[in-house]
Amino acid sequence: MKFGHFEQHGKTFYGIVEGDQVVELDGSIFDSYKTTSKKHALSALKTLLPCRPANFYCAGINYVAHIEWGNKRKGTNTKPPAKADIGYRSPSALCATGETILIPADSPGPVQYEGELVAVVGKKAKNLTEANALSCILGYTLGNDVSDRGWQASDRTLWRAKNCDNWKPMGPFIATGLDPLALTVKVNLDGKEVSSYTTDKMIFSAQHYIAKITQYTTLWPGDVLWLGVDNATIPDLQDGMVCEVIQDDIGVLRNPVARAKA
Amino acid sequence: MKFGHFEQHGKTFYGIVEGDQVVELDGSIFDSYKTTSKKHALSALKTLLPCRPANFYCAGINYVAHIEWGNKRKGTNTKPPAKADIGYRSPSALCATGETILIPADSPGPVQYEGELVAVVGKKAKNLTEANALSCILGYTLGNDVSDRGWQASDRTLWRAKNCDNWKPMGPFIATGLDPLALTVKVNLDGKEVSSYTTDKMIFSAQHYIAKITQYTTLWPGDVLWLGVDNATIPDLQDGMVCEVIQDDIGVLRNPVARAKA
Repeated sequence: MKFGHFEQHGKTFYGIVEGDQVVELDGSIFDSYKTTSKKHALSALKTLLPCRPANFYCAGINYVAHIEWGNKRKGTNTKPPAKADIGYRSPSALCATGETILIPADSPGPVQYEGELVAVVGKKAKNLTEANALSCILGYTLGNDVSDRGWQASDRTLWRAKNCDNWKPMGPFIATGLDPLALTVKVNLDGKEVSSYTTDKMIFSAQHYIAKITQYTTLWPGDVLWLGVDNATIPDLQDGMVCEVIQDDIGVLRNPVARAKA
Repeated sequence: MKFGHFEQHGKTFYGIVEGDQVVELDGSIFDSYKTTSKKHALSALKTLLPCRPANFYCAGINYVAHIEWGNKRKGTNTKPPAKADIGYRSPSALCATGETILIPADSPGPVQYEGELVAVVGKKAKNLTEANALSCILGYTLGNDVSDRGWQASDRTLWRAKNCDNWKPMGPFIATGLDPLALTVKVNLDGKEVSSYTTDKMIFSAQHYIAKITQYTTLWPGDVLWLGVDNATIPDLQDGMVCEVIQDDIGVLRNPVARAKA
């Protein structure tokens, strides 16, 4: 099943996506809902951010080939993390599919992008084990983790390097029933594939992260966990490009790129 | 004026605190509200978290005497930050006054606490200047930034060092009309004052942080900005202690401490 969050004529609602049709739901997919008899053409609706997380967790580094690429590119010697220490991003940076990734005029760059699998929490959870970790997950969506590598090097924190407005596109839909370790994620730039990787190569699995997180903090419905990226994603983002993150069951997260005028 | 968020008989509402009385409001202090004719004894109400932020900003290091104390204690040589690079905490860690700061059984410690002034955003804001920065602020509350210094040293991120459940008490109320650079914040442990500092010694002012943040990201109603702590806060937190953060206009943020059994 594939859930989405939609707007039409100023009204917002959750829906189930069936091909090019959307069945309107009454209620919230994070609480309770009923299926209605209303059907819409997907193309007639505005696709919103699928959820608005209270807590935005991000694995950051979670694939070996991506670390090796970064080391080669920057002449660094970053090792794979020894423990699943989760990081954070700011929900202020989220935007939906179709919205523009706006690069501030003073961004030193390079501005890079990482197509990630995102686990969406559906149930309040604490003290889960790896064996039952996925019991709290409603489904999976896609995220595009945009970063300015210049600011990442110059600033004490990752605030503007990772969290400028619209630097965290997420969506388009939340697909249920997937195995988070058996998916292929592709990244396109201007319609051409620039990267493809399989999620079985995660250093720490979604299950492992969820078990570790819930040892200390409660997960809440609508929280999201971004699970990292593998491989290189080149070339860097430039004004006018269109970036896509694709997983066949979830859909296409497509966002144009624009650079603000100085 | 002093706003609070309250619960009584399962109903939640915002109110204006007048001495030991609360005037019930109809609506949200972050949107629109009307004063009602209902008055409650403050003691008859449960005081809730004053707001549930979408984005939880935290200055971290923002006072020189606190940096010097940390350096002396740890034998480090941390310099005052050169730029106002904002950090983040996770809203999952927030709790209201009266709730228990629970130390996990495996916390290596020491567990420390920092009584901070917190600016609460009332209006959506982007591209503010220092001169008009405070126009987006509804008022000020207090925060207690609890940290495990062992995990802070051992982990790649601050996740469990700073964001365990209930490690970010915030409240009790939101006071309006204050000058954020002219306040005295006190910290008590078991009823005895252990620290007192004045907010005029901030390295970067609230205004400066807000101007920098809104250059890159939008501030939203209910977002919070924790502004750091000055001086030493000793001794470390132990099971059974009661920690208070106090500012006369805002009130007393009081939280007991308990250590989980292994």
